[in-house]
Amino acid sequence: MIGRTHYCGDIQEALIGEKVRLKGWAQTRRDLGQVVFIDLRDRSGIVQIVATPEQSKEALNAAERVRNEYVLDVEGIVVQRDEETYNEKIPTGKVEVRVDELSIMNASKPLPFQIEADTNVSEDVRLRYRYLDLRRPDMQETFKLRHQATKFIRRFLDDHDFFDMETPMLTKSTPEGARDYLVPSRVHPGEFYALPQSPQLFKQLLMVSGFERYYQIVRCFRDEDLRADRQPEFTQVDIETAFLDTEDLFSMMETMMAGLVKETRGVDIETPFPRMTYYEAMNRYGSDKPETRFGMELVELTEILKDSDFKVFKNAAASGGIIKGLNVKGVANKMSRKEIDDLAEFVAAYGAKGLAWLKVEENELKGPVAKFLSEEETASLREALGAEAEDLLFFGADTHQVVWDSLGALRLKFGKELDMIDRSKFNFLWVTEFPLMEYNKDEDRYVAMHHPFTRPVEGDAHLLETKPEDIRAEAYDLVLNGYEIGGGSQRIYEKELQERMFTALGFNKEEAKEQFDFLMEAFDYGAPPHGGIAFGLDRIVMILAGRNNLRDTIAFPKTASATDPLTQAPGKVSSRQLEELHLKLDVVEEEDEDD
Amino acid sequence: MIGRTHYCGDIQEALIGEKVRLKGWAQTRRDLGQVVFIDLRDRSGIVQIVATPEQSKEALNAAERVRNEYVLDVEGIVVQRDEETYNEKIPTGKVEVRVDELSIMNASKPLPFQIEADTNVSEDVRLRYRYLDLRRPDMQETFKLRHQATKFIRRFLDDHDFFDMETPMLTKSTPEGARDYLVPSRVHPGEFYALPQSPQLFKQLLMVSGFERYYQIVRCFRDEDLRADRQPEFTQVDIETAFLDTEDLFSMMETMMAGLVKETRGVDIETPFPRMTYYEAMNRYGSDKPETRFGMELVELTEILKDSDFKVFKNAAASGGIIKGLNVKGVANKMSRKEIDDLAEFVAAYGAKGLAWLKVEENELKGPVAKFLSEEETASLREALGAEAEDLLFFGADTHQVVWDSLGALRLKFGKELDMIDRSKFNFLWVTEFPLMEYNKDEDRYVAMHHPFTRPVEGDAHLLETKPEDIRAEAYDLVLNGYEIGGGSQRIYEKELQERMFTALGFNKEEAKEQFDFLMEAFDYGAPPHGGIAFGLDRIVMILAGRNNLRDTIAFPKTASATDPLTQAPGKVSSRQLEELHLKLDVVEEEDEDD
Repeated sequence: MIGRTHYCGDIQEALIGEKVRLKGWAQTRRDLGQVVFIDLRDRSGIVQIVATPEQSKEALNAAERVRNEYVLDVEGIVVQRDEETYNEKIPTGKVEVRVDELSIMNASKPLPFQIEADTNVSEDVRLRYRYLDLRRPDMQETFKLRHQATKFIRRFLDDHDFFDMETPMLTKSTPEGARDYLVPSRVHPGEFYALPQSPQLFKQLLMVSGFERYYQIVRCFRDEDLRADRQPEFTQVDIETAFLDTEDLFSMMETMMAGLVKETRGVDIETPFPRMTYYEAMNRYGSDKPETRFGMELVELTEILKDSDFKVFKNAAASGGIIKGLNVKGVANKMSRKEIDDLAEFVAAYGAKGLAWLKVEENELKGPVAKFLSEEETASLREALGAEAEDLLFFGADTHQVVWDSLGALRLKFGKELDMIDRSKFNFLWVTEFPLMEYNKDEDRYVAMHHPFTRPVEGDAHLLETKPEDIRAEAYDLVLNGYEIGGGSQRIYEKELQERMFTALGFNKEEAKEQFDFLMEAFDYGAPPHGGIAFGLDRIVMILAGRNNLRDTIAFPKTASATDPLTQAPGKVSSRQLEELHLKLDVVEEEDEDD
Repeated sequence: MIGRTHYCGDIQEALIGEKVRLKGWAQTRRDLGQVVFIDLRDRSGIVQIVATPEQSKEALNAAERVRNEYVLDVEGIVVQRDEETYNEKIPTGKVEVRVDELSIMNASKPLPFQIEADTNVSEDVRLRYRYLDLRRPDMQETFKLRHQATKFIRRFLDDHDFFDMETPMLTKSTPEGARDYLVPSRVHPGEFYALPQSPQLFKQLLMVSGFERYYQIVRCFRDEDLRADRQPEFTQVDIETAFLDTEDLFSMMETMMAGLVKETRGVDIETPFPRMTYYEAMNRYGSDKPETRFGMELVELTEILKDSDFKVFKNAAASGGIIKGLNVKGVANKMSRKEIDDLAEFVAAYGAKGLAWLKVEENELKGPVAKFLSEEETASLREALGAEAEDLLFFGADTHQVVWDSLGALRLKFGKELDMIDRSKFNFLWVTEFPLMEYNKDEDRYVAMHHPFTRPVEGDAHLLETKPEDIRAEAYDLVLNGYEIGGGSQRIYEKELQERMFTALGFNKEEAKEQFDFLMEAFDYGAPPHGGIAFGLDRIVMILAGRNNLRDTIAFPKTASATDPLTQAPGKVSSRQLEELHLKLDVVEEEDEDD
C-alpha cells in the first residue's frame, strides 16, 4: 500500500497546492449531488475532503458509496476554501483536499453511537463497544495525556539515575493487606501463586542488592469489592531509593509532580509542596486526604462546649471525644428543614448518631440545640466559627474518628454542592506522620496503617512494646485535590526492629518466619537505609484529564463486578484445564449446560 | 541523614583536596594495624578509603569493626595515592579518601558467596540469595544494560508517534496457542480469568479504535514446561500499527534495533537487514532462525543422488522427500568412528533414522555409504559440497522437515564446537513468508503457524479452501545471532476473510463465536489495515549482554519447575481463600502436615 504523506490534522495553509495522501475514517459525509464532502479523521484531527466530477469522476463515484466510519485511502490537492466556508473550530478549517483518488479500505455498519465527545450513551454500551468508545475525541485526548504523563515520569526518573527494573507477577500470597488474586500451579499440585498487590518486598530486596534507585510502572492487583474509584488491576508508579531520607525524596518527587502538571496541563506549581501531619489534616479537614482548594475548615469547640447543658456535647467531651463545628456560610435560609434533617442520615454513614445544627440570625442562634447553650457559650462559638447572619452551623460531638469522618464528609459535600472548589487549581499536599499502627477490634490486634515494613519516626520505636498506637510512622501520602495519589515510607532495614514490629502486630512467629523469612535473612547481609513511594497512575491521569471516573483512564477497564463487557471475562474453562490444575469447582450448578 | 556528595566511582583526580561524603558497602577491608583500607562500593564503582590515626582516631576505631558488606557512611578528603600504589584497573585508582568520619549504618554476616564477577556457586544458591547475587558486578552490568535497552526502545517509539498504552492482565482464556495461567474469580463462581499470552486481541482493538501506533513493554505468561530459554512470565515489546505495510514496519524496526545495538554495545549495524524466506532459511540453514555468523550451509543433493543405489537416498527422493549434505571441513581425521557414530543418536532426536557420512581423501571418499555411489555421483557430490581432503561429509535423506531439522542441528553443533562463530558480530535477519498454517496430525486439523489473525500474502487467500498448507503468511520473524528475537504479521481486518480463516482452522462455529465474537464485531465498524510485531525483551538483553542464560536477565526468575527459590512461590493457601474462590483441591495428599 502507498503510505500516507501527512496526518489529517497537519493539512493547513502552508500545504496549499501540494498533493497529499491521507488515510483515516469518514467522520461525516454530505452528498450534494455532483459534489461529496467528507470529514476525514485520523489520530491527529479532521480535514475536509471534496470529491467533484471536475477533479475525478471515479473518486466521486467512490465517495458516493462512503458512509460514516468507512476507512479511506485518499489522494488529492490541498486548496484554499472560500472564505465564507472557513471552519474556525478546527486547525485545518481554511483548506480542503480536492480528491484525485479515493479507495475504500474497509466499510462500516451504522454505529451503535456517534463518535463525538459528548455522548449520553450508558457506560455499559460504551464498554461493550469499547473500541468505538475509544474513537471519541475526549477519549483519544485522555489516552494521549496518559501516554504523555507516563513518558514524562519515565524520562524524569531515567534522568535522575533510576533504573527501570521488573519484578515478578507470579509471586507468593501473604496474609497481610487486601485479598490476593491467586493463580493455581499446574506443576505443584495444591499450590498457588499470587498476583502482586505491590512489588513491596521485591523493591526492598533490590535496595539490598545495591541498585539504589529503582522504579517501575507496574500492574498491581487487589481482589476487593469495587467502588467507582477502584479497579481489580491498577497501575502503580513504584519508586524505591537507598541512602535518601524523606526530605531528599520529597524534594525530588515535588520536582517530578510539578513538572508533570506543567507538561500535561501547562500550569505552574509552586514547590516545596505544603505539608500537614495526619493529626492536623484530620483536625482541620476531617480527612487524611484534604481537599484544600476551598476553606470551610472544621473548628475546634471542645473547650467551649464541654460543660454544655446539651448532653451530646457534654458526654462526648467527658468520654475523651471531641466537639467540632462547621460553618456553611450564607445558606441558613436557602435550606429547608427537611434538607437539613436529611443530612443527619448522610453523616450516619460515618458513625454519627445525629447532627446538631444552628441557624445564625443577626442577634441569635436558632435551632433545636440553641436552648441548651448559655449566653457565654453562644458568644464563644459564634466567635470561634466566625458566624454571621445567614450562616448555617453544624456540630459533631463523638469520638475523634466519628467527628472527623462525619464533618469531613459534610464539608466536602457542601464544598462541591456550593461550587466552592476552584477547579483550575492543582493543590498538592504532603500528609505526614501517620500512626504506625491502629487497633483492629475484629482481629483483636494492632494492624499496620501502611504496611509492616514501615519505619517508626526517629525516637518513637521505644513505644513498640508499650504504646504502639502512639508511634508515628515515617510514612507519607501525597494528596492532590482531595485524592490520595501516592503513599510511601522509610522502611525498617534492621532485622531486630523488624522482628519487634512483627511481634507488635501479633504475628505468629512461625507465620512471620514462613512469609517473610527471605526478607529477614536479607537484612542479615548489609541492608542499606531505604524508602520509597508509589503513585496511582490511573488516578493521577484522571485528575489531570479532569475526569471523574477512573474507568475513563483505563483502555479496557473492568465493571464494578470485575467483568469485562467486551471480552466477557471472566469465563468458564474446560474440565481438562481444571484437571491439569488439580482443582474441582465448589459451585452449586444451576444448570447443566455451558453458557 | 546527611546526603552523599558523590558516588564512589566519581572520586577521581579532579576532586583531590575536596571533602566528600560517600555511602556504600565495604567490598574488602585490610587492617594493617594503625591503618585500615576499605574498598567502598556503590552502584557506580569502587573507591579506596583509608582510616589513619592522624586523620581521625574515632574513624579508625570504627573502621576496625568493619567487615565485608557492612553498610558505611563515610566523610573524608580526596588525596592522591603514592604512584607505586596506583590501581590501573579502576577509574578511581589514582586517589583515595582519607576518612574523617565513618559510621556503620548496618552490619553483615559473612556471605554465602563472594560479591565478584566470576562465581562458581551453583545457580540454586544464587537464586536462593538473589539479593546478594544481584550485587555481583556482572549482574549489576546486565541490569544496567537492560535498563538502557528498555529506555532506548521506549524513547525511539515515543519519538516515532507511538502511544504507550496498557492492556488488561485479567483477561479471557482462549483455546488456541499455549496453555493459559488461570485466575479464579471470587465474584463469579466457577469462572476464571486468564493471564495474557500476549495482548494480541487488545492491540488489534486499539487499531480499530484509531490509535494507529501502539506499543507496550508488557509481561506475558505461558504455562508450558520450561526449557533453559523459557520462563513462565516474560517481557514483550509489543508493537502494532495501522496503515503501515510490512516494508514501512521493517524499515522502522531496523532503525530501532540498529540504534539499540549502537547504544548498548557501540557496534554499527548496517541497514536494511538481510531477508530470507522461510523456505530459503530451512533449505540453506535447516532452521527458521538461522545462525548466519558462520557459513557451512546445507547443500541440496536430491537431483544428484535420487537414483542412487543407496536405498535410503533413493526412497527419500521417491517419496517426495529430499537429500541434503553438510560439509564439515578439515575434521575427517580428527573424529573417531565412535564420535561419528554418536552423531546418529544426536540427529535421532530430530526424527532422523540414521546419519550417512563420508570422509574425503585425496582421491576417494571413504565410509559405509561410499560403495553405493557411482563414479559420477561421487564426482557430482564432491563438486556440490566443495569437498576437499580431510573434509567430513554428512547426509540427510528423509522428509523435508526431518532433513532440515537434523542437519540444521548438526550444523549448529559443529559451528559451536569448532568455534566457527564470530562472537563480536550482531547478525540480524528477517525471515519472511512463513506458511500460514500447518497440518497437525494429533488434532487432525490445520493449526495457525503464527496465530489465527495472520493475513495471507496478497494473492494467496484463494487457497484457503483448497490448499491451505500452500498459503504463505504475511508473517515475519526477526532473527539475531540464531535466536528468534521477535515475530509479527499483518493482520486480517476483514470479517469475511477472518471467518474463512476460522473455518479453515476447523474452528467450531459456536466456539469461534464465543471466543472471538468481539473481534469479529469490531471488524464490522471500520477496521483499518494493521499489523505489528512483538520482541522478546529478555532474550534481546541476553544476547546484548553476551550471556547464555535467560534467567541472568530477569531480576527474580523462576526455576525450570516454575518456582522461586527466594520467596518459595508457589505456596499453599488457606482454606478460607479456597472457599472464597469456590474451589476444592483435587490433590492426593501424601501427608497431613503443611510444609
